Amino acid sequence: MIPKGKLISIGGAEDKGTEAEPDFIQKNNLNFFELGILKRVVEEIGGSHSNIEVITTASSIPEEVGENYQRAFGKIGCDNIGIMHIKNRYDATNPAYIDRIKNCDGVMLSGGNQLRLTTILGGTELMNIILDRYENEDFTVAGTSAGAMAMSNTMIYHGNATTAHLKGEVKITTGLAFIKNVIIDSHFEKRGRFGRLAQAVGCNPMCVGIGLGEDTGLIIKQGNNFEAIGSGCVIIIDGHKIVHSNIADIPEGSPISLENLIVHVMVDGDQYKLAQRKFIGDFISVMQE
Amino acid sequence: MIPKGKLISIGGAEDKGTEAEPDFIQKNNLNFFELGILKRVVEEIGGSHSNIEVITTASSIPEEVGENYQRAFGKIGCDNIGIMHIKNRYDATNPAYIDRIKNCDGVMLSGGNQLRLTTILGGTELMNIILDRYENEDFTVAGTSAGAMAMSNTMIYHGNATTAHLKGEVKITTGLAFIKNVIIDSHFEKRGRFGRLAQAVGCNPMCVGIGLGEDTGLIIKQGNNFEAIGSGCVIIIDGHKIVHSNIADIPEGSPISLENLIVHVMVDGDQYKLAQRKFIGDFISVMQE
Repeated sequence: MIPKGKLISIGGAEDKGTEAEPDFIQKNNLNFFELGILKRVVEEIGGSHSNIEVITTASSIPEEVGENYQRAFGKIGCDNIGIMHIKNRYDATNPAYIDRIKNCDGVMLSGGNQLRLTTILGGTELMNIILDRYENEDFTVAGTSAGAMAMSNTMIYHGNATTAHLKGEVKITTGLAFIKNVIIDSHFEKRGRFGRLAQAVGCNPMCVGIGLGEDTGLIIKQGNNFEAIGSGCVIIIDGHKIVHSNIADIPEGSPISLENLIVHVMVDGDQYKLAQRKFIGDFISVMQE
Repeated sequence: MIPKGKLISIGGAEDKGTEAEPDFIQKNNLNFFELGILKRVVEEIGGSHSNIEVITTASSIPEEVGENYQRAFGKIGCDNIGIMHIKNRYDATNPAYIDRIKNCDGVMLSGGNQLRLTTILGGTELMNIILDRYENEDFTVAGTSAGAMAMSNTMIYHGNATTAHLKGEVKITTGLAFIKNVIIDSHFEKRGRFGRLAQAVGCNPMCVGIGLGEDTGLIIKQGNNFEAIGSGCVIIIDGHKIVHSNIADIPEGSPISLENLIVHVMVDGDQYKLAQRKFIGDFISVMQE
């Protein structure tokens, strides 16, 4: 089935993501991403009067995050932004929230901890409605950092740069499953996450790895057509040409070996077709320059 | 999309599965499952003259496993069994194998190590053909132990009974993705795997946990309708009514807490509807007894 909706996955910009949020976050860091990316989100959802619901579930400081979104969207002229502080599974059954999800034009999943998204929203009626609307309507699901990482079927939730090359040190569980055959990572260059995404892809090359840089995102249409946006890079790790791999044969904690990963580095305007595993550079804008 | 094919997931019977296979396996243990289950597999695939291809990729002793299958299928009158020793990604590109996969009536994935299935077959043309035939034809995919565990979108590949209650001690990656919204475990009672399946379900209650006992299996039709077969039990762990969970908030290595898992114990003839999360006991046969 080809979904009718769109996904917008953004790599995040503050020091959150898989780790627990610090109690104290510098004010500057609350500007999650440049307004350029946010403008594009609004455009894709349907313009500045669209009704966008921000879901702060991933965050341990939802009030601050919610206010920050309201302010950021306000700066670019949006006047119809709702904030949903769904803090536990009981909140997710709130009929008022379910009603709002049924009627909005798109949702934005904030950053924080992606395990909060899956443990709190996984299997709830509210999440089923979002999935159903994404599949059957021109409905947009945007997410940053944890909100982006939770979009795939399988979701990385932990893995340190220093140990991610060791088998079993990259912790994966079931994501919210808007898109299959990919695995999404965020804060990619800044936090040195190549190793963990390579391990995730190596474990099953059916999945293409997507490493989102900060202030950078992907617009995903029809579950297949990717377009990079923003000021940084999106790294694609394609394992379907892997020849040698030691993953199945080594004990937990041993370093992994993989031969022949195909890696693409995408910048704003570049495209990628998932099913065809095809990179399409933004040659037109290059030629215009 | 509703798949037209069938899955038959079997809990295994010898001491293999997620652990590395021992070099020495007792002869008795090579009788993977009672012929009763195997007979049902043959029936579902289309009778004793059906062309069934056994894929031994998961096993580190493929020749012995292949011979054992040939013998076991032979005992119940099957005369059209092929054995495919796909030992690496290069073997998976063999045009003769691809041709046989295009023309057989069903496949049987042997036990062994499920990471061998995903690392060797994930993202290959051969696996894409199996997935495509399962989705679009009356095509049966059977698997035992590792072969059953690899069927879901997310796949457990490691986790010891003594530590599986600790966050991060259950290792999960992307499965072969014949069925979403479930996570399958095997050798369930014998190896004390409740803890690891509960953790997998707790991480995202969107997934229903399926714990297959030995000499026991599930026939899955339309990706939704489960029927238990065999002499043991199938445990269903449904997390969608979870209220309290500490998983998102605790550090790696801490014990997890979950309130309100719903658990069903299915025996031969019992049914379960995945989307409706509904257990249907085999009341008719109970009443007949």
